[in-house]
Amino acid sequence: MTEHEKHMAAALQAAERGVRGVNPLVGAVLVDDSGAAVAVGHHRGAGHRHAERDALARAAAERPDVDLSTTTLYCTLEPCRHHGRQPPCVEAILAAGVPRVVHGAADPTADAGGGASELAAAGVDVVSGVLAEPCRRLNHRWNLAQQQGRPFVTVHLAQSLDGRIAAADGTSQWITSAASRSHTHRIRERIDAILVGSRTVAVDDPRLTARDESGELLAEQPLRVVMGRRPVPEEARLRRGRPEGEGWLQVPTHDPLEALRRLDSAPHSGRGVRHVLVEGGSRVLSAFFAADLVDEIFAYHAPVLLGEGPSSVGPIGVSSLSEAPRFVPDPAEGGPVTLMGDDVCVHLAPEPSASSMTANRSS
Amino acid sequence: MTEHEKHMAAALQAAERGVRGVNPLVGAVLVDDSGAAVAVGHHRGAGHRHAERDALARAAAERPDVDLSTTTLYCTLEPCRHHGRQPPCVEAILAAGVPRVVHGAADPTADAGGGASELAAAGVDVVSGVLAEPCRRLNHRWNLAQQQGRPFVTVHLAQSLDGRIAAADGTSQWITSAASRSHTHRIRERIDAILVGSRTVAVDDPRLTARDESGELLAEQPLRVVMGRRPVPEEARLRRGRPEGEGWLQVPTHDPLEALRRLDSAPHSGRGVRHVLVEGGSRVLSAFFAADLVDEIFAYHAPVLLGEGPSSVGPIGVSSLSEAPRFVPDPAEGGPVTLMGDDVCVHLAPEPSASSMTANRSS
Repeated sequence: MTEHEKHMAAALQAAERGVRGVNPLVGAVLVDDSGAAVAVGHHRGAGHRHAERDALARAAAERPDVDLSTTTLYCTLEPCRHHGRQPPCVEAILAAGVPRVVHGAADPTADAGGGASELAAAGVDVVSGVLAEPCRRLNHRWNLAQQQGRPFVTVHLAQSLDGRIAAADGTSQWITSAASRSHTHRIRERIDAILVGSRTVAVDDPRLTARDESGELLAEQPLRVVMGRRPVPEEARLRRGRPEGEGWLQVPTHDPLEALRRLDSAPHSGRGVRHVLVEGGSRVLSAFFAADLVDEIFAYHAPVLLGEGPSSVGPIGVSSLSEAPRFVPDPAEGGPVTLMGDDVCVHLAPEPSASSMTANRSS
Repeated sequence: MTEHEKHMAAALQAAERGVRGVNPLVGAVLVDDSGAAVAVGHHRGAGHRHAERDALARAAAERPDVDLSTTTLYCTLEPCRHHGRQPPCVEAILAAGVPRVVHGAADPTADAGGGASELAAAGVDVVSGVLAEPCRRLNHRWNLAQQQGRPFVTVHLAQSLDGRIAAADGTSQWITSAASRSHTHRIRERIDAILVGSRTVAVDDPRLTARDESGELLAEQPLRVVMGRRPVPEEARLRRGRPEGEGWLQVPTHDPLEALRRLDSAPHSGRGVRHVLVEGGSRVLSAFFAADLVDEIFAYHAPVLLGEGPSSVGPIGVSSLSEAPRFVPDPAEGGPVTLMGDDVCVHLAPEPSASSMTANRSS
């Protein structure tokens, strides 16, 4: 492993502390001329500063003794040059006087790419493509979602040890632990929209709000989205008499990609919906899995056995094991496996396929 | 937490490093008169020395400077006084000259109990019942198996993310990772017998041997047991033409307790079968779960989605969630959750019920 690769590996580790969704995971490490790390930064999710700025801010706050003009900034992704909700990182790097930038993956988004050239034009020594493959793989599904012009999709599966979401008589409250449910509500708070099927609305009448342990509403609430053609009753708890557009909407389709593309332009938090949590039911989940539109899974396995009752996921068009979609443990957000009360929560991402990696490379 | 409880908690932690099965989990800590731990011991499973002897042997080997006549031995279970495959611990304690013994749970086995009185009669200062409840709970299922006069039962569930053991067309090799399968073979090596249904023999024709990664037979092989009434074909791989009694046998019953009791007296390794691994199929597993005869579960969740195909466990007589059997993470053997390749292996034990704890208490 070269010196560059060693520092990039540390930046990758930092990136994995972030949460997936609206933005890609990015990590950054500022290294002095002796090769020692001065500051480590990462992106914490939408609305938070970018990894490069995070590392620079930490260096300024914690290591004012370090002369930044002697440092190298390692970042897993090419620094951005666009004005989004955060100012461009290129500006911050130039303002700080960092003379050398080493980055991993190229920025695949059309409106943000070119940061490396801009830095080089301003006289910064730029090295590209260090550990490019793992840096790209870290966000392969985020890149795919961008290319497909759709929000990032998180799915949660809350099921018994034998993969069921309710007992034979339909009872399901509660299969999972209080800790698992609390985790789900924290995810609901930070996504843009939560999506369920119109059948689930008719059968379960869920509220789809983000709540704390005592049932109080959290500060941020997702847009509530009903997919499918059954009308949403006036008195359904997710709308409580409110007209469509006021905190909820319906996408009258059974095609998940169409539903996602409509959401991409639905107004939320001053931007389109960029991160959706799909909660069910099993038919909706099957449709998303069958279309390869699931970017991230949180699977809660509760240590309870039912033996009968509906499965978490219905048919997805797989008849033989070789056709089955495979996932890999996702190291982001504190690691792939967490004990939540007595439940085990497994965090998974789709296995990077040859096609998705090629698609990323060509962008 | 008192001084006694502090040391007993350390002994409990040591106990959890053992493996479940033929013997109960036991831990021991030898403490000097300043309250410092001199040696920690635990029982590693059938054929290994008991926890008390383990702690004493470590003290002799690693801390020859310590005068044992100034120490206290903490053990989670009352020291045994019977001659089994291991010599009685009471003798070892007296021979070492340890003047004080503090133990947690009383020994519930008829032929081994009474160690505490024997120590006291020999002049040892004995304190009983420190952290008695957690010490008893550690082995509540082992105690239950003893009371029921049957082997300890381990179950393994190897399933997809959605709880299935094969795809719609029956393909199932391999759902789980090589690391998970290797773990199963190490369990097969240390149990006394492996049990499957006669239908599984007819359909899957399994070998039921313990093998290493390259397919070579491991040193110890379990007795292969077929439960049910379908005849086992002469050419079945688990017998390969050998008559019953030569490495395999059939218990022609559908009653799991009856099958277990017959096994308890079946000859294996110079004693009866005391630890059984039940591998399937789903009907056999259902029968064991329905009869509350599963003492330990290893559930391998492979990150692959099938959507269709048979479930790992069939109906167990649960129609509503409130009736469903609940399990708890088992801290023994390195913790309740292990990443094995891309699979997550969850180690579970039945939730201690009020009745099982009462039963233990009265014994």
